[in-house]
Amino acid sequence: MPGRSLDFPSWLADRVAHVEVVLDQFLPQEDVVPSMLHSAMRYAVLGGGKRVRAALVYAAGQACLSNGANSDAQLIALDHAAAAVEMIHAYSLVHDDLPCMDDDALRRGRPTVHVRFDEATAMLAGDALQPLAFELLADMPIAPALVVQATALLARASGSLGMAGGQAIDCESVGRVLTQEQLQQMHGMKTGAMLQASVLLGGVVAGAGSQTRTCLESYAQAIGLAFQVVDDILDVTSDTATLGKTAGKDAAENKPTYVSIMGLDGSRQLLNTLRGEAQTALLPMGACAASLAHLADYIVGRDR
Amino acid sequence: MPGRSLDFPSWLADRVAHVEVVLDQFLPQEDVVPSMLHSAMRYAVLGGGKRVRAALVYAAGQACLSNGANSDAQLIALDHAAAAVEMIHAYSLVHDDLPCMDDDALRRGRPTVHVRFDEATAMLAGDALQPLAFELLADMPIAPALVVQATALLARASGSLGMAGGQAIDCESVGRVLTQEQLQQMHGMKTGAMLQASVLLGGVVAGAGSQTRTCLESYAQAIGLAFQVVDDILDVTSDTATLGKTAGKDAAENKPTYVSIMGLDGSRQLLNTLRGEAQTALLPMGACAASLAHLADYIVGRDR
Repeated sequence: MPGRSLDFPSWLADRVAHVEVVLDQFLPQEDVVPSMLHSAMRYAVLGGGKRVRAALVYAAGQACLSNGANSDAQLIALDHAAAAVEMIHAYSLVHDDLPCMDDDALRRGRPTVHVRFDEATAMLAGDALQPLAFELLADMPIAPALVVQATALLARASGSLGMAGGQAIDCESVGRVLTQEQLQQMHGMKTGAMLQASVLLGGVVAGAGSQTRTCLESYAQAIGLAFQVVDDILDVTSDTATLGKTAGKDAAENKPTYVSIMGLDGSRQLLNTLRGEAQTALLPMGACAASLAHLADYIVGRDR
Repeated sequence: MPGRSLDFPSWLADRVAHVEVVLDQFLPQEDVVPSMLHSAMRYAVLGGGKRVRAALVYAAGQACLSNGANSDAQLIALDHAAAAVEMIHAYSLVHDDLPCMDDDALRRGRPTVHVRFDEATAMLAGDALQPLAFELLADMPIAPALVVQATALLARASGSLGMAGGQAIDCESVGRVLTQEQLQQMHGMKTGAMLQASVLLGGVVAGAGSQTRTCLESYAQAIGLAFQVVDDILDVTSDTATLGKTAGKDAAENKPTYVSIMGLDGSRQLLNTLRGEAQTALLPMGACAASLAHLADYIVGRDR
């Protein structure tokens, strides 16, 4: 296994704390007009969360930078990319929680944005977080050609063939029986696409070559799927207090999940296979991929 | 006046027809999964409309290109930019029409997206149109540095300090009395920002120099405001059948408008002043700005 000497818990805690500061800086202050909208955007983005996507950007970026000279500009660009994926993620949660979607009142142990503010403000806060993410990418102080690649990556991952499309399939599939293949496609789009984009964004910003990008893609595909399998397992095995969101919701709504299709044991077996695939994909990158390797274990082993 | 020899009605009809074809090509087909989402996106974008924003992109682009050699790549890039602003505009209409916002059942003479489909699909269609717009910019076949500038422009114009922010102020202001200054700020963000961005995008894509960009900015600011003043006048003087959307809605909801603050005559006077400002701004550009000059008249004189 590459790079197991890293003090991963410290690394992760440092990155999570760092991206909170970065997000705080990039979000408009609450006293900037329109004040309520900006308050809602800050509430949505700064409300905690695991920051897995930001961590993936940093881990992938650092893995690639450690091969060469890393400039301040590249480190700043990683901050922009990490903040961008967290803003897209936050917007998707705000919209998913709305009454016309999942109608959820609790997120990360706090009232959801439309409960804390109102529906119109929640929708607009989500709407405004999207262009802020793309603005952050456009403002990255690196070669314009890399900025353009990053923009295309984020746009595809969050669009109708990525995250938003997966969400649409999810809505359409309530009460229907999906095959494992269909379920995999939905989750690959809904959750996997943005996790993959996070990994690849880190690589693109850090100027990764095509060989490294291929490693990152294989790794990203495995952890993208693994993330959703864990989510489905936790929905059954955990409780609302631990999750910070309503547990048992999928079963109550008759939503197809990995657990409902493959059972708990089958899901855990799949998880192990995916963890192995992620680690294998990183082997050619050597020790510099340590944080990525640890992140795969972290995603598989998380309890919320 | 520059370039009044242009056959403007033919030019505009050609551009509108052309961007319909372009939009049709750039939107995913209805048989691509998720099929209902893509149907809703197409319904939202291809449902007619004046295509003023696309026309502004083309007019500004052609004004700048006519000064030098224009390549196929630049013309393709203008198509991307024109489609991008129309997609952002379409997403904003879909979300504005939702029950938690304006709760409107009619748009362009047809049922709104959430009436024709459902609320969740309408929200996701809007959500997915945003990244598609940024993807189109990222795919422009011009110098990456210009693509990055275009991305930053569109992101700022559509974000919390632009269109989405103006919409938020609009929501907050229902039933309250705004000063003319506050009204101007709101409309400058809600409608003006994207109209301005359309003009400037055309300039950026066509490689406009800083002097030309200054002309375009002054022009864009004037027509951005004029557009909203006309909207407010039409809400009072026109009927639902002509507008293709519910007339008299602002007054019914006690929304502040130019007419409610300045009266009908005052609003028409302001309109004439803005038309003059727009034409004056174009003078340094000469005959190549003909379509922009005509567009200013068209915006002021439109009846829907």
